[in-house]
Amino acid sequence: MATAIRVQERSLLGLKELSRTEIEGILQRASYWDKQEYKLIPVLQSRFVSNMFFENSTRTRFSFEMAEKRLGAQVLNFAAAASSVEKGESIYDTVRTLESMGIDAGVVRLKPAGVLQQLAEKVRVPLINAGDGNNEHPTQALLDMYTMQKTFGEIKGLQVSIIGDIMHSRVARSNLWGLTKMGASVRFCAPDNMRAPELDGEARYVDIDEALKADVVMMLRVQLERHASGMLKSAEEYRRQFGLTEERAARLGSRTVIMHPAPVNRNVEIDDAVVESAKSLIFPQMENGVPVRMAVLERALL
Amino acid sequence: MATAIRVQERSLLGLKELSRTEIEGILQRASYWDKQEYKLIPVLQSRFVSNMFFENSTRTRFSFEMAEKRLGAQVLNFAAAASSVEKGESIYDTVRTLESMGIDAGVVRLKPAGVLQQLAEKVRVPLINAGDGNNEHPTQALLDMYTMQKTFGEIKGLQVSIIGDIMHSRVARSNLWGLTKMGASVRFCAPDNMRAPELDGEARYVDIDEALKADVVMMLRVQLERHASGMLKSAEEYRRQFGLTEERAARLGSRTVIMHPAPVNRNVEIDDAVVESAKSLIFPQMENGVPVRMAVLERALL
Amino acid sequence: MATAIRVQERSLLGLKELSRTEIEGILQRASYWDKQEYKLIPVLQSRFVSNMFFENSTRTRFSFEMAEKRLGAQVLNFAAAASSVEKGESIYDTVRTLESMGIDAGVVRLKPAGVLQQLAEKVRVPLINAGDGNNEHPTQALLDMYTMQKTFGEIKGLQVSIIGDIMHSRVARSNLWGLTKMGASVRFCAPDNMRAPELDGEARYVDIDEALKADVVMMLRVQLERHASGMLKSAEEYRRQFGLTEERAARLGSRTVIMHPAPVNRNVEIDDAVVESAKSLIFPQMENGVPVRMAVLERALL
Repeated sequence: MATAIRVQERSLLGLKELSRTEIEGILQRASYWDKQEYKLIPVLQSRFVSNMFFENSTRTRFSFEMAEKRLGAQVLNFAAAASSVEKGESIYDTVRTLESMGIDAGVVRLKPAGVLQQLAEKVRVPLINAGDGNNEHPTQALLDMYTMQKTFGEIKGLQVSIIGDIMHSRVARSNLWGLTKMGASVRFCAPDNMRAPELDGEARYVDIDEALKADVVMMLRVQLERHASGMLKSAEEYRRQFGLTEERAARLGSRTVIMHPAPVNRNVEIDDAVVESAKSLIFPQMENGVPVRMAVLERALL
Repeated sequence: MATAIRVQERSLLGLKELSRTEIEGILQRASYWDKQEYKLIPVLQSRFVSNMFFENSTRTRFSFEMAEKRLGAQVLNFAAAASSVEKGESIYDTVRTLESMGIDAGVVRLKPAGVLQQLAEKVRVPLINAGDGNNEHPTQALLDMYTMQKTFGEIKGLQVSIIGDIMHSRVARSNLWGLTKMGASVRFCAPDNMRAPELDGEARYVDIDEALKADVVMMLRVQLERHASGMLKSAEEYRRQFGLTEERAARLGSRTVIMHPAPVNRNVEIDDAVVESAKSLIFPQMENGVPVRMAVLERALL
Repeated sequence: MATAIRVQERSLLGLKELSRTEIEGILQRASYWDKQEYKLIPVLQSRFVSNMFFENSTRTRFSFEMAEKRLGAQVLNFAAAASSVEKGESIYDTVRTLESMGIDAGVVRLKPAGVLQQLAEKVRVPLINAGDGNNEHPTQALLDMYTMQKTFGEIKGLQVSIIGDIMHSRVARSNLWGLTKMGASVRFCAPDNMRAPELDGEARYVDIDEALKADVVMMLRVQLERHASGMLKSAEEYRRQFGLTEERAARLGSRTVIMHPAPVNRNVEIDDAVVESAKSLIFPQMENGVPVRMAVLERALL
């Protein structure tokens, strides 16, 4: 039982259950790894890590794989076609199988709600959430926070606006919970049909003009496929109402930065010219993802 | 020519052609690897092994990859969409290509009958059968036998019932040939349309009640896709007639264990509650697959 | 700026812009790697190389991966379904993403014209062209030239006939530009609808009988899918008019060798029996691909 608790402490399922101290610890270690001159620091040489992606994401998988390989871990990739492994039951069987084969930790990405939590209770190795339905994406929020800390010195007191499809966004949830704990103030901005009623009371909704008055303007990816009817029309309409257009970007405060979890739908959430503008931290976010994930892996395995 | 024979001795195409002494040698080395405290024992550091999967199987590939990486081998995965490489001719071209590029051994999984044997005659590196049509799946049978040996002390004298789609099962064939050589007694149990006429005389068919009176009850995966018409109906009907239901499991002898090559169709071949019951060796089988495959790789390459 | 130029010097985008001295340098180092007794020579131990394949090719990816792993590099594979990443814009975003995550070099294969050149101007790590639309496939031509050099002692003065779909062939273009620089004489042979008008003046078209009078007869893969209408008929017709049939192979000069970039459409471009005949260098070409790519990677990273 002590072991089970120990394993769950090493897992990273979400930021909702993490304490401020724990988050600070991870960010501090991320900073340590970020400063290392050598790319390969094989402290996890004899550890076997599996990236188990039941939902496709080459970018997130790649970032974890970089982190794992920089630490010298043995990496085994497992990707399941979403269609064949949709049900929690078969995800469970697969994870238990890979666990039986001797992995030391699993990085898991999946769609069905609640399955990750059940998995973590049943397997005996630490699990790291690499995207869990509409619930949490903690390493994304940690890299977002690390990027803010690097930019502003500290997270406490920052005004952060999260703009877009809040309802379906695990990035929004993890950032909300993480940032609030770290003393930042979070506001949402979303079309009515993309709000998350269950988060009412945790963050206030503001209109787009108000949302742009912030230290951090975090744009979310619009899942166009979730609004299939009249897609192109709604993409244009979305941009007009909620997009970070060049015109809106020009009105941002001098200190304000732009973030996005990527990949960007250029000219939908953010105008093409804004993506690589001076105010954009989109590529630095990706860069910071690697040391942050090194810190999370180290926490799981050392 | 001496070299060709030497290579073929290092290959593992099936258990039909292996002697009892050879099987015992592999099981003994599996036990050696199983007992190692350290996970990474890089005796194959400079050897290049390719997993060439012309038929999809993430689990078997993963198990081989664990075994290869635990031995420190350089691993290259090759997976071909079944559709694009169905013909023996293109499989041959691919394997010859990868051989030309300098691999030291190939782990091959494919569908078309007879192709693996032809390949092994033509290439100059050892090949390991990771599933060969309806013919053999020797590492699965070896890990099954290793699991039996670990459980019962020795294989000789065991009563083993193999239940299910014998006709399409390479697992059944490899186990039949391996177990018989090791002195176990094998019986089959299958619906009429899933029997394998060419094996008549090698194992006796018994009804399900008789089959359950055994030391090992080995359930096979039902390939539901092979019985497309009235699928759900036949799944339920299959369970009723041949499934290891909770009720049947309760009647098993105290010493009897349950095995399955996985993945299980829960509530078809085996009831959900039985899969992880005390009598089930399904997850230990997966665990044992890794040291068994380490032994097979070592035999091929050292 | 000096750095940008330095990076571009380490990149390998095509043979058109490479000098004869540079080509000779690569072939010389390929010869060095080819002669090494040990397979694993980890000079790139702490370098991270990503194979970014936006167009499928397991063979070319495998050859690069062998080369990378023989040099001890950390390898990360990225394969994008052609359908989801067709546009240059999303390829750019992906490559910039992987660059941000800290790779030291990228091996890139893609379809859209002109995108690779733009990428190389924008990213800060060397890029290696592993197949670029209908433009160039420089490592294929380098391995072809290396194979010729190994066979004939020198490339200068060789008569090379390239036969097939010149219009769509990046292999033909890279060989044309490379071989010409090295002092070989190149002639084309193609059906009227497969000629490349923009190359007129660079190589003369001859008929098949004339083309066979050469030191090297290089057959190109016919992209049957590009001639969808009446496919089988045209495959047979193609063979009759331009295929290296057994009959034509028998008429080749004693010194003439046969090459093909593979995979071969057996009995279309080349008759089955000719593929592995004594005159065929098809499998040696694949073998030579690995040391050639080691030389290209070394040039990019050391």
